[in-house]
Amino acid sequence: MKELRVNAARIESRIRELGEIGRNAQGGMDRTTFTPAELEAREWLKARLRELALDVRVDEAANIWARREAAARGRPVEGELPVIAFGSHLDSVPNGGRYDGALGVLLALEVMQVLRENGVETRHPFELVSFSAEEPNPFGLSTFGSRTVSGKLGRRDLEGVRDAHGTLLVDALRAAGGDPDRFEEARRRPEELAAFLEVHIEQGLRLLERGIPVGVVSAITGIYRESVTVVGEANHAGTTLMGNRKDALMAASEMMLAFEAACREHPSEETVGTIGTIENRPNAANIIPGEVRFHLELRGKTREEIGEALDAWAARAEAIAARRGVRLERKLLLDQHPVRMDPLVADVCAAEAAKLGYETLALGSMAGHDAAHMASLTRSGMLFVPSLGGKSHCPEEESRIEDIEKTANVLLQSLLALDDQLNR
Amino acid sequence: MKELRVNAARIESRIRELGEIGRNAQGGMDRTTFTPAELEAREWLKARLRELALDVRVDEAANIWARREAAARGRPVEGELPVIAFGSHLDSVPNGGRYDGALGVLLALEVMQVLRENGVETRHPFELVSFSAEEPNPFGLSTFGSRTVSGKLGRRDLEGVRDAHGTLLVDALRAAGGDPDRFEEARRRPEELAAFLEVHIEQGLRLLERGIPVGVVSAITGIYRESVTVVGEANHAGTTLMGNRKDALMAASEMMLAFEAACREHPSEETVGTIGTIENRPNAANIIPGEVRFHLELRGKTREEIGEALDAWAARAEAIAARRGVRLERKLLLDQHPVRMDPLVADVCAAEAAKLGYETLALGSMAGHDAAHMASLTRSGMLFVPSLGGKSHCPEEESRIEDIEKTANVLLQSLLALDDQLNR
Repeated sequence: MKELRVNAARIESRIRELGEIGRNAQGGMDRTTFTPAELEAREWLKARLRELALDVRVDEAANIWARREAAARGRPVEGELPVIAFGSHLDSVPNGGRYDGALGVLLALEVMQVLRENGVETRHPFELVSFSAEEPNPFGLSTFGSRTVSGKLGRRDLEGVRDAHGTLLVDALRAAGGDPDRFEEARRRPEELAAFLEVHIEQGLRLLERGIPVGVVSAITGIYRESVTVVGEANHAGTTLMGNRKDALMAASEMMLAFEAACREHPSEETVGTIGTIENRPNAANIIPGEVRFHLELRGKTREEIGEALDAWAARAEAIAARRGVRLERKLLLDQHPVRMDPLVADVCAAEAAKLGYETLALGSMAGHDAAHMASLTRSGMLFVPSLGGKSHCPEEESRIEDIEKTANVLLQSLLALDDQLNR
Repeated sequence: MKELRVNAARIESRIRELGEIGRNAQGGMDRTTFTPAELEAREWLKARLRELALDVRVDEAANIWARREAAARGRPVEGELPVIAFGSHLDSVPNGGRYDGALGVLLALEVMQVLRENGVETRHPFELVSFSAEEPNPFGLSTFGSRTVSGKLGRRDLEGVRDAHGTLLVDALRAAGGDPDRFEEARRRPEELAAFLEVHIEQGLRLLERGIPVGVVSAITGIYRESVTVVGEANHAGTTLMGNRKDALMAASEMMLAFEAACREHPSEETVGTIGTIENRPNAANIIPGEVRFHLELRGKTREEIGEALDAWAARAEAIAARRGVRLERKLLLDQHPVRMDPLVADVCAAEAAKLGYETLALGSMAGHDAAHMASLTRSGMLFVPSLGGKSHCPEEESRIEDIEKTANVLLQSLLALDDQLNR
């Protein structure tokens, strides 16, 4: 059998073509879930999939699936084998980039096209999937599609959910081709699937800094979030001398810096912490802040590492509160455990890359992905493409076509290798 | 002539009575400028002034003036002498207290009543004044009345000004009895006035902590404000390792703490600094803050002291910005110079207090007041009453009737002494 390779020029041209849909004046991507631009991208994808004579289906959660049936290819198989699925998502954050999500879908499309052009027969049915609403979105439900497929979201989670303009999620879902009334039929059973593989941009600097073209993901980070409220005493900004203040913003500043220090001091570089939001009350130029609330987020590849950084911070924060005479209130918002990727899938990817002569790096994914949810359903893996400047969720997001081509070939070969090796 | 004294029981009962107008469920005062409650308070005051047969006039800026004509009282005078004015304001901050502003108006009313009951004749006409909109208000124009009287606000400053509900300032002003079309006629000329004296609560702890019942204000603080923007780099909260961040919120936290330190370290306790507002972008839990803006405010009794604290901070802030790789942008918002109170008025007040057997403290006012604007027009002074707990702009704002009575007697005697001593 001749050597199968992806077509880099075709991939590049499709990145440009899809990247026009939702492109804004700053060159960023405004393709938030269920917006007109995102619906247009869905139509673009479905048209490309139909050109490949694939069986295109939009499920009840508006996920797009495109199926290529199995053929015998030599080896006899007992009955029908389950599906090998691969893909990512088309939606973006507001003013995001052209690669996050879209690249994984385009490479899945390229795989389907190469298989067709070369008349490749597979033992397992192959399905491309483009998941709905992976990014944080106006309806407050990220990884919407993969959570539904893996049975974590149900009909009741849709009830009464609206965006800031009052649009009901169920209406937006219907417009995208979903069916809220039969929502739970989007769920897939473990026995239907043999494996899932997703390509995504790294969104960090580890591959780029090491000059490695392909990352093989070992685990998807856990995410821990809590809301921290610092209660001081609002008072007159002029008449309250410095020694008489219980300034909630100054106490919060000290606690935030203590959090940064706890994360920096943690031995694992994959333990990172961010304070992304802050709200100050009463937030008037002439009143000493009386109450500050911020969201603290920790990510790490094990629960233990997250716990270590959190405990180191909490002890310092308590001491700061006591010294400044303010009260500290903490409320858990999210405790999403780290998810290990399937070792067999990771080994197959690393082996296929080696056969192609590409160096790989095993690394943890510091962002959440649809693959984290698919992992509860089937053997799942991820491949990472280096991100220029480590930038993501911004118009400057970019990856080099040389790296993309290599990763696409690893995806193609790994899917075929899994097709060979998996006997269910 | 018999000893004139104020009636403490009457003052106390009026504090309660006026304190019912605009009182909210938490016991706080919601009597913001030009609200129905504030208009009701104005009507209450005008009725009390008319009971004293005073000539009540509402000027074009809706300031309430109540005039008591001069009489010869022994000494011959060349022509008519100018006015000795005294008073404060009736409006409150949202959920404020019963004393800020209102106390100065009630003590001025008490003075007018004592003069009438005792048939006291003065050489100068006496005018009580209740200024419009002293507090920060929904129209964004504080010390509105006194700035108009002293010629700092004109017709053009009213144009297009609306509150958050879209109400035009000119309409609200008309409803309060003002006249935007003839607005500048509210201005008074220096030759019309001989002196201005205002009683106010201290809103701080200096009198209370020293056990002194009456403060004589030497200067009104200068207020300096700038908007500080810290520009870092927004990035993914998971994939950007700690060492690769340019976190604007962390840089801002360090700068804010440096500001607090610069103020604490300044030798004058009357040099105070506050960061009252902060705005963070994009303010999402999973994005490293890219831009933070805060308002920095400094107050001090001289421009030099304000400058010293500001320079000490700025040097540290620049160093923090350089170390963290963020950009610092500073924009001046306000540079209101400190205003010295008239030494003759202050001396008269201190001397009258001494005759009454009360200890006084000369102190700077850390808040802005109408008297700061009246000082550009005429000899002006202020008397302070101790504030329990130093609290102000909150429902717990309170002063003791013993201190109020003493200060009211100092006000009464000082006005009469000024009437005696001033020959224009």
